[in-house]
Amino acid sequence: MKRIRRVLGIDPGLANTGFGIIDDFGGRMSLVGYGVIETSPEDAHPSRLLEIFRGIEEVVSKYAPDESAMEELFFGRNSSSAMMVAEAKGVVTMALAKNGISPAQYKPNKIKASVTGTQSAGKETVERCVRILLNLKETPRPDHAADAIAAAITHIHSTATPAAGR
Amino acid sequence: MKRIRRVLGIDPGLANTGFGIIDDFGGRMSLVGYGVIETSPEDAHPSRLLEIFRGIEEVVSKYAPDESAMEELFFGRNSSSAMMVAEAKGVVTMALAKNGISPAQYKPNKIKASVTGTQSAGKETVERCVRILLNLKETPRPDHAADAIAAAITHIHSTATPAAGR
Repeated sequence: MKRIRRVLGIDPGLANTGFGIIDDFGGRMSLVGYGVIETSPEDAHPSRLLEIFRGIEEVVSKYAPDESAMEELFFGRNSSSAMMVAEAKGVVTMALAKNGISPAQYKPNKIKASVTGTQSAGKETVERCVRILLNLKETPRPDHAADAIAAAITHIHSTATPAAGR
Repeated sequence: MKRIRRVLGIDPGLANTGFGIIDDFGGRMSLVGYGVIETSPEDAHPSRLLEIFRGIEEVVSKYAPDESAMEELFFGRNSSSAMMVAEAKGVVTMALAKNGISPAQYKPNKIKASVTGTQSAGKETVERCVRILLNLKETPRPDHAADAIAAAITHIHSTATPAAGR
């Protein structure tokens, strides 16, 4: 099967920004790579944001994705930690735009539904479905990488065209 | 008088990111330039963040500041607009770190007190004091630029050393 596109999924965060790269072959998906950009709370805040930026540039340069996707932020918490995630997300979004692959955004429920078929799926179900969809023996770790992969799967499901063989 | 340093003040926002550049001569300050990086709500969100990043790079390249400062975000509002400001702030902070001038952060009350002498000063008082401190005939406009200038003044007041002639 011919590869249609390569999708980068991201789960942004100040301490841990998960990423996962999936190749879309039309009827089949293949996990190409995944990981986490980690920053230390011992480093200054601006330096951590800069590390995230450089990490994204590195991932994009290494895997050359055609498109990208991430989970929409949850606005329920009114805390400085939510603001920190937003800052990291701003940096990630800008870095992707800078590389010509502005991210599509998906709500958490949309991601659950897309991966498992139901919005009320629990974490275990999501992980099991990700393993099945990507034909994996183990669930990718850490969680941030798994969440990034789920966002990429959602993007592929949501933007597949009939021409892509579905 | 010899210039001790050049300080860039920033007031980050998604639609309007104000900036102001002040030269610190020890006992005297001089406004070098100011303005606003504007982005349009008609543009895609990632493109707007990218415009802010490029705008900051341009300002830094044009004025070559030695240090930078911005107002700390206010966490009181729990809204998507507060998150948008946080995303813009993340991009600005990272861009400054990338250029070796990670921003110092000051609380709104600290800025009022530093510029006017009292934390309860109103907007008019802040503007008048900025004009006096910088020997200006008019208040810099728009507000975002004025706020950025106030942050830069606060930074100069807060980090002046006896060796700098105070």
